[in-house]
This record gives sequence, C-alpha cells and structure tokens, in this order.
Amino acid sequence: MSGQVHPPARLLMGPGPINADPRVLRAMSAQLVGQYDPAMTAYMTETMALYREVFATANEQTFLVDGTSRAGIEAALVSLLEPGDRVLVPVFGRFGHLLVEIAERCGAQVHTIEVPWGEVFAPEQVEAAVAAVRPKLVAVVQGDTSTTMCQPLADLGEVCRRHDALLYCDATASLGGNAFATDAWGLDVVTAGLQKCLGGPSGSAPITISERAVDVIEARKHVEAGIREPGDTARGTRIASNYLDLAQVMDYWGPRRLNHHTEATTMLYGARECARLLVEEGLDAAVARHALHGRAMLEGVRGLGLGVFGDVAQKMHNVVAVEIPDGVDGAATRAALLADFGIEIGTSFGPLHGRVWRIGTMGYNARRDAVLTTLAALEQVLRAAGASVTAGGGVGAAREVYA
Amino acid sequence: MSGQVHPPARLLMGPGPINADPRVLRAMSAQLVGQYDPAMTAYMTETMALYREVFATANEQTFLVDGTSRAGIEAALVSLLEPGDRVLVPVFGRFGHLLVEIAERCGAQVHTIEVPWGEVFAPEQVEAAVAAVRPKLVAVVQGDTSTTMCQPLADLGEVCRRHDALLYCDATASLGGNAFATDAWGLDVVTAGLQKCLGGPSGSAPITISERAVDVIEARKHVEAGIREPGDTARGTRIASNYLDLAQVMDYWGPRRLNHHTEATTMLYGARECARLLVEEGLDAAVARHALHGRAMLEGVRGLGLGVFGDVAQKMHNVVAVEIPDGVDGAATRAALLADFGIEIGTSFGPLHGRVWRIGTMGYNARRDAVLTTLAALEQVLRAAGASVTAGGGVGAAREVYA
Repeated sequence: MSGQVHPPARLLMGPGPINADPRVLRAMSAQLVGQYDPAMTAYMTETMALYREVFATANEQTFLVDGTSRAGIEAALVSLLEPGDRVLVPVFGRFGHLLVEIAERCGAQVHTIEVPWGEVFAPEQVEAAVAAVRPKLVAVVQGDTSTTMCQPLADLGEVCRRHDALLYCDATASLGGNAFATDAWGLDVVTAGLQKCLGGPSGSAPITISERAVDVIEARKHVEAGIREPGDTARGTRIASNYLDLAQVMDYWGPRRLNHHTEATTMLYGARECARLLVEEGLDAAVARHALHGRAMLEGVRGLGLGVFGDVAQKMHNVVAVEIPDGVDGAATRAALLADFGIEIGTSFGPLHGRVWRIGTMGYNARRDAVLTTLAALEQVLRAAGASVTAGGGVGAAREVYA
Repeated sequence: MSGQVHPPARLLMGPGPINADPRVLRAMSAQLVGQYDPAMTAYMTETMALYREVFATANEQTFLVDGTSRAGIEAALVSLLEPGDRVLVPVFGRFGHLLVEIAERCGAQVHTIEVPWGEVFAPEQVEAAVAAVRPKLVAVVQGDTSTTMCQPLADLGEVCRRHDALLYCDATASLGGNAFATDAWGLDVVTAGLQKCLGGPSGSAPITISERAVDVIEARKHVEAGIREPGDTARGTRIASNYLDLAQVMDYWGPRRLNHHTEATTMLYGARECARLLVEEGLDAAVARHALHGRAMLEGVRGLGLGVFGDVAQKMHNVVAVEIPDGVDGAATRAALLADFGIEIGTSFGPLHGRVWRIGTMGYNARRDAVLTTLAALEQVLRAAGASVTAGGGVGAAREVYA
C-alpha cells in the first residue's frame, strides 16, 4: 500500500501553486464542527467580512465557492449568463481564452478582442468594442500568468456602466499582490483562488458580487419560481448548474442559511487564514511586498544577463517571464533546478512554449531569501548548462533593489 | 480582526459531517508540491489505485473531482446527460430529489418513481419503470441520510444492462460503511464524498467510471471536436460545464496529464489518507465496524425506550432516525446536547421535520466510546426535559451488543 504522505521539500517559484503559508496549513488542521454549529456560522460570517477587506468592497455578497479558482469563474459566468446573452472578452493570454470557453458553454454569444501576448488593452479599445457589441457582460482577467501581464481595470467599470454592461473580473493570479479595488473600480463580480498571492492551497474560490449583479442572479431565481418582480429582465432560463448556482449559494451563506452543499470546512479554515494574513499585514503593505520582491527578481534575472518577455511596465508584480537563452534546454534547466536545489520554476505554453520560463514571487514565497536562493541556483544551473551568465550578477542586482 | 481558528470540542454524531480522523488532518497539513512534480503525479496515481479498492472496481477512470460530494454528482450527470435524454430516478428521500433537480438542469427528461419515506425499492419496481421509460440513465442514491434507508443495488446493474441503460449511484452517505461493489453490481458511475464513513472533511468527491460510461463521455468530446467514430451515439451537444467536464478531468488525471484546473492538493492529501485508512483496515472490516456500532446505537436508543423510524432491515449501518417522544422539544434537546455535552446530533427535514433526530455512527466516530457517550448524554438531556426514559437502558443495551 502507498505510504504516509511525505512530500519532498520544494521551493515553489513558478506561477502557482506556491508553498502554502505554514499558518494556513496549521489552521487547516483544526478539527471540524457541524455545518450549523454557532462556531461554524460565526466562521462563515467572519470569512465574509475578511474577504470584503481583501476585495476592497462593501458587497454584502462576499463568500467562498467550494472548488478551485476555476469553479469560482464558472459560478460567476453560469449564474450571470443566459443562453444567447452577448459577452465581450478582451483576451490577452490563455486565461482570457478560458473565459471564452466557459461563456460559450453557458450558451452565450461570445465576442472577443485580442492584443498580442505581452500587451494589455487601453480603455478606449475596450470601450470601442463595448459600443459595437453592446454586451450584457464584459469578462476580463486582471493578471494572466500565461503572459505575466496585468490589465489596468480602473477605467473599465465606468466604461461598462456607461454602456449598461456588467463587469466580471478573474483576479485569481493577481489579488493580494497587485492593487485591487472592487468598488472604486466599479467591478460587479470578482473571483479569486488561494494558491497565488493569498498563500494557501488551491480548492476554495473567494467571490464578491455587487448589488447590481445580485439583482441579475436573483431575477433568474424569481423567474424559475414563477415570480415576476418589477425590473426583472431575466428571460427565464434556469441556471444550468445546481452546485455553482450563486442564487442558492447566496441563500446558504446569507442569514437564512438555507441548506445547499456540505461546506468544505477545512478549506474554509484555510481561506479564512489566508485573508487573516493579508488583513493583518495590510493590503497595501502586501501589494508593496509583492512589488519589491517582484522587482528584485526582475532585476536579478536581468543581472544574470537574461531577457524578459512582454511590456514590463504592465507586468504583474508576482511573476516574470524569463527568456530562455539560445542553446539552453528549458526543460532540462527546470529539471536540474528541481533535482539539485528543490526549486520549481514554471514552463509556459501557447506562443511562449519553449521560449520563456515563468518565475513567481508570491504569497508566502514573496520573500528575500526565496528570491536570492532562486537566483543563486539559477546561475549555477545555467553555468553548468554552458550558458553565458554574469557571475554573481543575479544576486547582486537583487540585493541592490533591497538596499 | 477575527482570531485564530479555534473550534470548540465537538463530538459530531449527526448524519455528517463528522469529526475527521486525526490522521487525515495531519496528512492535510503536509506542504504543497507543484502540480506536475513527480511526487504529485505519484500521489495522484496512488490515489486512483486506493479508490479502486474503496469502490471495489477495476475501472481505470477512478479519481477525485475537486469540490464537495455534490460537485461529484453534478460532474457525473452533466457529463453523461445531453439535453432531452431520458433519466429515471427512483426517489426514496431528499437526495433522490437532488438527483432529479440536477438532471433537470442538465436539460434531461426526468422520470421518477417514489416509495414512502422509510422504504426502498424492490428490483421489480425499478425494472418495470425502466421498461416503461426506456431511459438512457438510471440515477439512484444508495444511502439517503434523510430517511436512513439503504437501497439494495445488487440487482439493478443487471436490470439496466438488460434495458441498455447506464446506472449511476450516489454513494456519498454509504460508501465505506455499507457493502459496496461497483463492478460486481454493474454500476457505471459512482460518486462519493469524504465527510461520512470515509472520515475526512467535505471538499473532495471520489468518482469511478466504467468503460461503457467513459465511451459515452468521450463520444461527446469527439463530436465537439468534429470527429465521428464508429459507435458514437452522442448527438453532439457540448458538456455544459468546463469545471465538471469529466472528459477533460479524465485527460488531466490520465497519462497525458493535460492541464485543467489547479489540483486542490491539500484535499487530495486528505482524500488519499481517507482511502489509506479504509484499505489498511480492510473494506469488509470497515463495513463490519459500521454494522456493529450502528447496531449498538440502534439497540441503545431502543433501550432508552425511544422508537426508530423506517424499515430497520433496510437501514444504512451508519445512521438511525430516532423518534422524538411526545412532549419533547426536538430542537431544545439538540441544543442541550451541544451546550452541555459538546455532542451534535442531526435534525431532519421534509416529512420527518420535527419528528425524528438523526444520529450517525460513521467514519472516525464509529467507535464504542462515541456510541456510549452519546447514549449516556441523551439519557440525561431527555430526563432533564421531563421525558420518560429507562435509566441506564441505552448504555446497557449497547453494551449487550458489544458483549
């Protein structure tokens, strides 16, 4: 029979998942309580309040979807979109394509605009498309790890409101490590995950939903129940999922606590601790920490003599795409880092496959020792592979950022 | 800010969730590794093998869905059912109605047969309905905690094969505590959860899929890709979910390891440990343990002078519905048990609301001390409430079972 779980020591410096903060794992080792125990409902209420701080929102409807970040995305889209609804997805990397695919499976008419990998959209580009498509929903990724780009969102809420569209944002890869303001930016629904800048394991998807979006979702429930209320615009299709039906999940997290699924209590303990860590540090301080260590890693790889992919001015703080030098085997380099140093960095896919490594500095691993250790190990592995690297240049350049 | 997670000590003797086995919580505190780390893929492969033993199957496609047991149910139904497909659901409790609701949301034509709460179906009743409805799929719950009944399944696979129907079973509440044989019984798809007899927290849904059912799911993928293969019967509708698309999830767990969601690694560690516990004990021994402690609880509540709901000969081993004596406030009794003894027992709903408590003896809590402690505390609480109970009768009767 297979033995006790005993994973090897790893420093996870890829685009996520990363090492969980030990405090999160300890919180997850707490014993269970019943689903309607007063202690449990108090934890649920606290978790809602904590994630309001993380998302920078006053939205009452801020809670967890029980599944990975992808479950959160699908819950948002399947609950908002009725078959035939028009959706606009500005695509600047792989996770934009995921939004397209999920929206298509909801039966939506999906329109896309695209920029080349390594770039982001100007608000005017989005507004022109919104004006042309007149979508019910604009669905956009904030930080797309496939390209490392971070889409500016501050103007998009206003654009969407002018054109009477809802705005959904997938903030899985960026939340906690990059500036984020649900209410100030006019975002209607935002979803995330724990396994990036939040410092936890994958398996719980924090979500926040504006009043405007709640109304759209509730209207579908009214129609389902045969009730028409003034202002209801839903055409009456039932939400195609039970598990990801946000109307039901809101009733479960809300004061009525209507039974839905059996809460994934251990994941809730973990998600709550992730938020506690961020709120304790302060969201601005956490973003500043990710900015600092991200800059150190960026200057470090440049100090080794390596190139960086994409428009660095628009890069997420927490991941960098490092060009694989000519003549170096990218996969062999990653394997050597893992075998000799226990360090994982990321591969890439799509147009960047074989061209870049993706190195993350996020959550628990947005730390000076993690950055310097990775740069030191990378120098050794590249040297052994015969690549031309500047001896000490990586650690030296990063140290200057920290000075 | 809210404090460190620190749940009160509880003995969870309801219909689930129950206390997690401490070994499971310890396994879940292990640090993460990367999603494609050789250690991680080895854990995934081991987990598949372990759940083949738990499900008593040789099905290659045996793995975890990342979500609660309800996510597993929905993954099975949304992947198997195309809009318009006929489904037969034999309903003998609340979770049968859940299967109906999920199948309806998949767009299926759902037909039901029902027996009164507290009873199960004879195979002839199911066969007559299958012959009349000619469904693509029969979807049935094994153990429905709402009534405590355990539907005999041994003959249903043969019935379904004779009529060319697939057979899906929701074994969430029963697996590990009651006899189960996926292959011997001819079940095509079975899903479960960790929070009942498996002794873990909710949040991961083990699933097993027969070759026959794999073919049905793969055929939809072929159609989606524009490929028609001999024998493909799918009408060409795309699976409405991405997150719960079993064709994609099989590719992710299979040898090609195609990227899908980011695995909920901590839940996988937990699910793996749940299966290790059962396989170590032996599945037959685990079922015998649940039978023993379930009988002790049953005789114990009778020994107190309380009645038991339903056809006891068809009861699941792991839960009993105890009639609330006349004049006793069921909710106040539960509250007193929780406040004074830290013991949780279950309420009930539907036709049984206010009529019975549901008491579970499952997973880590299928133990002599848990049974006797619960009976002793229940006697005290009922006595304080002015009910007529036989002093020492509960613990005494349970002790006789153990003698």
